[in-house]
Amino acid sequence: MSSLSQIIRHTAQIHGDRVATRLGGRSRTWREIQDRVSRLASGLQGLGIEEGDRVAVLALNSDRYFEFYFGVSWAGAVYVPVNNRLAPAEFVHWLNDSGSKAVFVDDNYVAAIAEIRDRLETLQHFVYMGDGDSPDGYLAFEDLVKFSAPVKASGRAGDDMAGLFYTGGTTGKSKGVMLSHRNHSYNVLQALPYFDVSADDVFLHSAPMFHLADGFFCLMAATLGCRNVILPAFEPTRVLQTMQNEGITTALLVPTMINMVVNQPDIDSYDLSSLRHLIYGASPMPEAVILKAMEVIPHAELTQAYGQTEASPVITVMGPEYHTTTGPKAGKLKGAGRAIAGIDLAILDDDGNELPAGEVGEVCIMGDNVMLGYWNLPDITAETLRDGWLHTGDGGRLDEDGMLYIVDRVKDMIVSGGENVYSAETEQAIYQHPAVAECAVIGIPHESWGEQVHAIVVLKAGESVTEQELIDHCKTLIAGYKCPKSIQFRDEPLPLSGAGKILKKDLRAPFWENRDRNVS
Amino acid sequence: MSSLSQIIRHTAQIHGDRVATRLGGRSRTWREIQDRVSRLASGLQGLGIEEGDRVAVLALNSDRYFEFYFGVSWAGAVYVPVNNRLAPAEFVHWLNDSGSKAVFVDDNYVAAIAEIRDRLETLQHFVYMGDGDSPDGYLAFEDLVKFSAPVKASGRAGDDMAGLFYTGGTTGKSKGVMLSHRNHSYNVLQALPYFDVSADDVFLHSAPMFHLADGFFCLMAATLGCRNVILPAFEPTRVLQTMQNEGITTALLVPTMINMVVNQPDIDSYDLSSLRHLIYGASPMPEAVILKAMEVIPHAELTQAYGQTEASPVITVMGPEYHTTTGPKAGKLKGAGRAIAGIDLAILDDDGNELPAGEVGEVCIMGDNVMLGYWNLPDITAETLRDGWLHTGDGGRLDEDGMLYIVDRVKDMIVSGGENVYSAETEQAIYQHPAVAECAVIGIPHESWGEQVHAIVVLKAGESVTEQELIDHCKTLIAGYKCPKSIQFRDEPLPLSGAGKILKKDLRAPFWENRDRNVS
Repeated sequence: MSSLSQIIRHTAQIHGDRVATRLGGRSRTWREIQDRVSRLASGLQGLGIEEGDRVAVLALNSDRYFEFYFGVSWAGAVYVPVNNRLAPAEFVHWLNDSGSKAVFVDDNYVAAIAEIRDRLETLQHFVYMGDGDSPDGYLAFEDLVKFSAPVKASGRAGDDMAGLFYTGGTTGKSKGVMLSHRNHSYNVLQALPYFDVSADDVFLHSAPMFHLADGFFCLMAATLGCRNVILPAFEPTRVLQTMQNEGITTALLVPTMINMVVNQPDIDSYDLSSLRHLIYGASPMPEAVILKAMEVIPHAELTQAYGQTEASPVITVMGPEYHTTTGPKAGKLKGAGRAIAGIDLAILDDDGNELPAGEVGEVCIMGDNVMLGYWNLPDITAETLRDGWLHTGDGGRLDEDGMLYIVDRVKDMIVSGGENVYSAETEQAIYQHPAVAECAVIGIPHESWGEQVHAIVVLKAGESVTEQELIDHCKTLIAGYKCPKSIQFRDEPLPLSGAGKILKKDLRAPFWENRDRNVS
Repeated sequence: MSSLSQIIRHTAQIHGDRVATRLGGRSRTWREIQDRVSRLASGLQGLGIEEGDRVAVLALNSDRYFEFYFGVSWAGAVYVPVNNRLAPAEFVHWLNDSGSKAVFVDDNYVAAIAEIRDRLETLQHFVYMGDGDSPDGYLAFEDLVKFSAPVKASGRAGDDMAGLFYTGGTTGKSKGVMLSHRNHSYNVLQALPYFDVSADDVFLHSAPMFHLADGFFCLMAATLGCRNVILPAFEPTRVLQTMQNEGITTALLVPTMINMVVNQPDIDSYDLSSLRHLIYGASPMPEAVILKAMEVIPHAELTQAYGQTEASPVITVMGPEYHTTTGPKAGKLKGAGRAIAGIDLAILDDDGNELPAGEVGEVCIMGDNVMLGYWNLPDITAETLRDGWLHTGDGGRLDEDGMLYIVDRVKDMIVSGGENVYSAETEQAIYQHPAVAECAVIGIPHESWGEQVHAIVVLKAGESVTEQELIDHCKTLIAGYKCPKSIQFRDEPLPLSGAGKILKKDLRAPFWENRDRNVS
C-alpha cells in the first residue's frame, strides 16, 4: 500500500549511500534518513503519540523539517505544517483546531510559542528542532533520534490520513485539508511523467516547506532519490549563491520569487550553468516575468504547475515546450497547462453540467489525488466535493488541446459596472510595462460601479512612469473596463503571505473598512 | 478515482486529434477511440452486460483488441483476455471458469469456438472482431459501435475489478488473477519515471495483447497518448519492416523475439534509425542476446522490466544505464533491475523474516499494484498474499544498491519463450499416457527461449513409447508450448526426498552447471 514510509524504505534500498539532504555544511544519506526517521518515530511513540494523533511543526526550512514529515508518518501520526508567517492568534487557532498533541519548533519560533503557550489547549509535548541547547520545557529532536531504537513503520497507508494542511490564510477562515498517504504518493506519480527529473538531480528548497508546493517537491525528491539542498527561507542572493555553489539542477519557486531572482542586478555574476529546470506555481505568473526568466536563464527549462492543496496539489502542468514565443506551441504562455495523468478535469457550469471547450465555468477534477475532506467541516466538504467532483473555486476554460486557462480566481475577481474583471489579466498588462517591478490589482469601493479597478505598483529602482502613462499602456493591451482607474505607487515591496502570495486582503483592507465587499 | 475510462477521457482531452492506433492502413485518433469505446460500452450494456460481468476475448492483436480493453471497462464489465495459443480444452476451462457472458472473436478463432461451443456454459453473446461479414450467431463489433449511442462511463474505479488474467496453474488448473482499476493505472504511473517515453513516441505492439506485458504497454501508451502501431502477431521480418515504415520509437518484445529480430540476416538493410527504446521482459534474457542487441541496434536504449501478472505486472526495472559493459554501472546485466516507485520489495525467508542484502529468499512485494486475489480461489489467495506480502514464487537476492537478482523460481514453473509453463500441468499430460510410470518436467537452458521444457520419464515395465509419440500425445491435451521439447528416458526410479517429493533440484543440476537459472 502506498505510504510515506514506503517511499523512504524504497529510496533507502536503492539509493542508500547517496546524499539526501544538505543544510549548510551538513549532509545526510538516504540510509541515514531512514534510520533517523525510524528513531524519531520511535521517540514520538515513546511520548505517547498514537496512530492518527496530530503533530504540528512551526519552523523555517531545515533538514529536520524534511525528516519531520517522514518521521511523523513512520509513527502513524498526522503532520500539521503551520504557516510560519501567521500572527500569534492564528497559530493558536491552527494548533487548537487540529488538536495537535506535539509541536516541533525551531529557534525562530520559540518566543512566539512562549507568548501563546497558555492558550494552547491540546499540546502536551514541545520538540526543539534547533542546534543549540533545548529551551525549558522542550525535548530535543536530536535526543529523540539518539535515544530511541528504530521501529518498524506504522501500517497506516492508502486512504489513512497522512497530513493536515491549513489553507485560506489569505482569503478568510482557515480550513484543514485532510490528505491521505495515497493522495500524496499518487500525486507525485501522476506528475512525474511531466517533469524531466531523476535521481541525479539536485533540488533547491527555498520556498517554505510548510506549504504543499514545496512539500510536494520534498515528496517528489524522496520518491526519486534526488539530493535536497535546503535554505531556511527564500532570499534572492542566497538562492543565486546556492544555485552556483551546490550545482542546483532543479528549483521550485513561486512567481514572486522568480520575479525577484531574475531581476537581481548582479545575476550575471553567478554561474548558473547547472540549473536546467525551474518549476513554478502556486499563484498566477505574469507573462512578462516568464519572458524575463527565459531571457536571463535561457538554458533552464521552465515548467508550470497549477493546483491547490485540496488536490495534493498538482492538477495541470505546462511543460518547457510551451515556454516559447516561436513555433507551433507558442502563444500559450497564459495557459496553466493540461491535466496530468490520472486526473479527470472538466469545466462545469453552476448546475454541474460539463461545458465544451472555450466556455468558462468552474474548474473541477476527480482523481486519487483529491483530498479526503476538510477537518471537522462536513458541510463545506460536502459542498466542495459534491457529485464526486472537487470544485476548485477557480474559473477557467479549456482550449481544443485541453490546455487550461484560469480566467478567474473566484476570490480574486472585481465586479465593476456589471463587468467581471479578473485581476490576473490586468496585472499581466501592467507587468508588461518595463518600469514595473511588482503590482497587485484589487477592487475598491465605487459609488456607481460597485467596485473600481485599482492597482498598487512598485517601480524598478531608477524607473519612473506616471499614473496616466501606465493606464494608457494598459489600454493598448486590454479592454478599457479592465484597465486600472486609479494607481497607487509605493516604495516598499508588496506584502507576501508565507507561501509567497501577495496578501491582497491586507491591500484591500484600508479601502473596505466598515463596508461589505459583495463579491463571492 | 483511477479507472481505465479516466485514462481514455484524459488522453482524448489533451491529445484528441493525434493518432491512437494504426493497423495496416487504418488510423484512429484518441477522440475517435473515446467515441468508439463509449459506443461499444453502450452496445454491451444493450446486450445485458452488467457491471462486474465478465467479457472474454480470443483473437490476435488488432486495433479492436485495444478498444476491447477500454470498451469493456467503460461499460463497467471485467475483461478476460484469453491466451490464444491454448488448446481447445483450455479455452473451455477459461471461458467457463470466468463465467464470461460474452466473447469477442476474430477470424482466426471462429472455428475453434465452433468446435467447443456446446461445452461453453455461460456465454450468451459472440462478437465478431473481423472486417468481413459476421459468421452465424455473431454480432459484429462494428455494428455495436455504429448502432449504439455513446454512454457515460461506468463509475467502476479504484479497487473494483477491471480484468481477469489467467496464468498457468501449478495444479494443472489455471488461476484467474483479479486486477483492479487502481492496480492497472497505478502500476503504469509507478513504472513511467523509469521509461523515457512521452506522447511523441510511437509504440510497436507485436507481443500478444492477451498477455499483460503488452496489456501494460497498451495502458502506458493510453496514459501518455502515444501512437500504437499494431501487428496481428510477432513475425521478425514484419517487425523490422514496420519499425522502418512507421517510424517506431519504442518496442516491447520478449527475449525470444529480440533474439529472432537481432539475428535476422538482413537486419542491416532496414532503416531502424527511429528506434530509440527497446523494452523487454516476461522471461529470462540470456546475456548473449542483450550483447547482440547492443551491437546490432546500438542507438536503441534497452530497458528490462521484471514482474508477474499478480503485480500488474511491473516490479523492477533495469534502465539503459546498466546495459553497458564498461564504466561503473557495468557488470549488472544479470540483474532484473530495482524496485520501481511505490513498491516495497523484500527478500523473505520461509518464516517471513526479511533477509539482508546478499542472502537468497523469496521475492515479496507490497504496493497498490498487487492483485486483488485469485478468482474463486480464497485458499491460494490467502497463501500468496499472506502477511500483506505478495509472494512472487521467485527466489532472489538483492545487492547493496537494491539490484534484484532472480536465482530460482520457487514455484515449479518454466519460462519458455515468454510463456509460463507449469511443470505439473505438463506432467499431468504425460502421465495420461498408459506407458508412463513416473515423470518429472523441468526447464533446461535454451539459447533463445531462455528455458526449454524437458521431461524425464520412467516407463512401466514391458511398455514402450518413443519420444515423438509421447510429445504427440501431449499435444492432444495441452498447448504446444507446454509440451516437452525433449524427453529423456531412464530406467531407475526418480530421486525422491524424504517426504516423497521428486528432487527436481537434483534432476536440473547437470543441465545448469556453471549457469544461473532463470536469470532475468
